[in-house]
Amino acid sequence: MYELFIGNKNYSSWSLRPWVLMHERAIRFDERLVPFTRGSNFDAFRHFSPSGKVPCLTDAATIVWDSLAIAEYLAERHDGVWPADREARAWARCAAAEMHSGFGVLRERCTMNCGVRIRIDHMPVELERDIIRIGELWNEGLARFGGPFLAGAAFTAVDAFFAPVAFRAMTYDLPLDDTAAVYAARLRALPSMRKWYADALLESWREPGHEAEARAAGTWLEDHRVKPSGARAG
Amino acid sequence: MYELFIGNKNYSSWSLRPWVLMHERAIRFDERLVPFTRGSNFDAFRHFSPSGKVPCLTDAATIVWDSLAIAEYLAERHDGVWPADREARAWARCAAAEMHSGFGVLRERCTMNCGVRIRIDHMPVELERDIIRIGELWNEGLARFGGPFLAGAAFTAVDAFFAPVAFRAMTYDLPLDDTAAVYAARLRALPSMRKWYADALLESWREPGHEAEARAAGTWLEDHRVKPSGARAG
Repeated sequence: MYELFIGNKNYSSWSLRPWVLMHERAIRFDERLVPFTRGSNFDAFRHFSPSGKVPCLTDAATIVWDSLAIAEYLAERHDGVWPADREARAWARCAAAEMHSGFGVLRERCTMNCGVRIRIDHMPVELERDIIRIGELWNEGLARFGGPFLAGAAFTAVDAFFAPVAFRAMTYDLPLDDTAAVYAARLRALPSMRKWYADALLESWREPGHEAEARAAGTWLEDHRVKPSGARAG
Repeated sequence: MYELFIGNKNYSSWSLRPWVLMHERAIRFDERLVPFTRGSNFDAFRHFSPSGKVPCLTDAATIVWDSLAIAEYLAERHDGVWPADREARAWARCAAAEMHSGFGVLRERCTMNCGVRIRIDHMPVELERDIIRIGELWNEGLARFGGPFLAGAAFTAVDAFFAPVAFRAMTYDLPLDDTAAVYAARLRALPSMRKWYADALLESWREPGHEAEARAAGTWLEDHRVKPSGARAG
């Protein structure tokens, strides 16, 4: 049985990717949630992940410690992780990899924080550029491969790589065009995404670093999470 | 015939990765070098690359615009891009992906600038941490899979992903342990790496942004590049 180590569901966009991929592709695994701690998680996470980061997949003695490597590892063992069509697969890998190494401004300015709603008071041009590029990618994939998912009829790893953006779109009310907004809503309506979101709201941990990042993004309008537990906060 | 679009050989660490991979795996391609321009290259590079970034591989009508996606695309068509052994392949993909999305401090503080030699006057702890992690990864791969390359006897994509670090180690005299330093020198001694380096020294273009980043890294000791051409500078 696979074991998947993840961080807090409210915060950990990287963890969400393989988690939702495995759920949507019906690949069974044991979930190991290890909450972020104040400051660096490196030492705590090093017990199971060589890079000190989540997510990390273990398959008996094999350790797969990066989200994109997890997708490729699973793709060698299970059908449908990437699209079967060769053109769609090349496109999907490019788009997923672009997310994996890029969109730094979006990732930094609009960190994932599923349970809150934030108004961006000032939109830097670099953030606007990231949002435009994401909309462009989504529109291209949906038009070219016929939807309703980015690389065709089925949910594949490229959708998993953009799943955190679907939550960010809701948290920060990102200015997406209609097609992109509908796609983001479609992702959020998936059973696995609804489960992740419900779990995230029930988390009572608050990690000050992640909270401060989200506070810096704009004006907090709503917080749908359960009350923080003092004992576990930070 | 594949076409590979790359940026300046002196600066473009991302471009080096597929370039050296294809050379070392004897995969033929036409090289299309498009120099960086002052400020953003986005508009210029968008003519051939959807993300506005290099590298970008084209295979007839198929466009593959990310370095890791290029490795996977080639791996579906050519032997030896990833290791044949399953454990080595999983490890290689993780290490390459960790480089693809990580080591931000090393990438920002020690940008690739093949032809110069710089003394780092102040080593931030975050940079030290990145260097330690790279040494750890290299030592692990070399010990576990027997060397002389990271995932065994042959040069594979994981070596290509760390090839820019071999040049950075020389430019910035990075404090690597003996095993890691020998491996970096081994990479630099490859025919393809020697060719890339020789080409880099002959580039007379200077892009102010890249130059300023390298100037900020410490004290410039040597510059082995040909004199800049005024007409093409910036």
